[in-house]
Amino acid sequence: MLRQAQHELLIPTRGRGLYEVTRPIGEWVGKQGVECGLLTIHVRHTSASLLIQENADPDVRRDLEAFFARLVPDGDALFIHTVEGDDDMPAHVRTALTAVNLSVPVARGRLGLGTWQGVYLWEHRKASHSRAILLHLIGE
Amino acid sequence: MLRQAQHELLIPTRGRGLYEVTRPIGEWVGKQGVECGLLTIHVRHTSASLLIQENADPDVRRDLEAFFARLVPDGDALFIHTVEGDDDMPAHVRTALTAVNLSVPVARGRLGLGTWQGVYLWEHRKASHSRAILLHLIGE
Amino acid sequence: MLRQAQHELLIPTRGRGLYEVTRPIGEWVGKQGVECGLLTIHVRHTSASLLIQENADPDVRRDLEAFFARLVPDGDALFIHTVEGDDDMPAHVRTALTAVNLSVPVARGRLGLGTWQGVYLWEHRKASHSRAILLHLIGE
Repeated sequence: MLRQAQHELLIPTRGRGLYEVTRPIGEWVGKQGVECGLLTIHVRHTSASLLIQENADPDVRRDLEAFFARLVPDGDALFIHTVEGDDDMPAHVRTALTAVNLSVPVARGRLGLGTWQGVYLWEHRKASHSRAILLHLIGE
Repeated sequence: MLRQAQHELLIPTRGRGLYEVTRPIGEWVGKQGVECGLLTIHVRHTSASLLIQENADPDVRRDLEAFFARLVPDGDALFIHTVEGDDDMPAHVRTALTAVNLSVPVARGRLGLGTWQGVYLWEHRKASHSRAILLHLIGE
Repeated sequence: MLRQAQHELLIPTRGRGLYEVTRPIGEWVGKQGVECGLLTIHVRHTSASLLIQENADPDVRRDLEAFFARLVPDGDALFIHTVEGDDDMPAHVRTALTAVNLSVPVARGRLGLGTWQGVYLWEHRKASHSRAILLHLIGE
């Protein structure tokens, strides 16, 4: 019998960087008793995003951060929306270049991620924030 | 009882820019009487995309446009696919860098967007177009 | 009566480039006998991604490849994660800039793609790989 579940996760961040959320999401999915289904993850912000990336070598996260810092530099004179500081508009652009929602199939009661895939919340602001992530699961 | 609904929105654009579509999408969702569910939005084009971004200060949209215009310049000599003009291939690249579909949970009969999140159709061509957006809702 | 189906496609690649997968995906969807529904496509890797792009002029794929090769150059001295070669970290960045999952509504038994939209697996590594794509369909 198909059914649904929803849940909101609040993730505290300590400034810019990639925060792995695979475990809390996977634990919530595991408790729903859904063998086959679809999980959707939505971050309710415009200056933080979601990313599925390598969960092994931390250098990958360091290099992703370095690349985006160079591509969308803080304090770029191009930007006029600077009301919250020099990382304000870069955070919006970095969010636009990545994603605010993801959909991952659930198989045998678990997220259908590849061996090296982890789910990350990418905080793009330099200050600490509390970020809300909405989870929606449908399946049976 | 879980059920589905589909609908196609046609959005007229007046050239390059971000067009907010949160209201027509939210109104259609509101009419379906679904309290909890999942909305998927798909734009049926390869030179226009979808973006969830800040709905408050219009400078954010101006800066997003300025950033993408610099990152993917019209008339770039790198491109050989120029059959429809100097904004043809940049429109495809801008679409590849953003998204053509989004999935947003529905809670209490409404889109689960954050306070500052709006849904935008991003027209990447300089001429006016009519853009087709397919909506799919599942829930109960 | 709403129901679900899942399937895994294995796509062999012969190095970097865009491989169209619209046909095998569409054929699998066609066999499920679902008239109205939602298809989710998830690639289970962090150095290959999914893209919906123009399926007509092959110059579009050539130009997309040229743009991404310039934006994220192989062997960039910025990167320290080079364990698998000079295309290792660029492959992760290109994946982050595009998508690992897509959701496309199904209408009248077929994928609701626009006339010029094709679904592509984008291999970002220079060597040949076998890439796993998970399909999830819900509908009736």
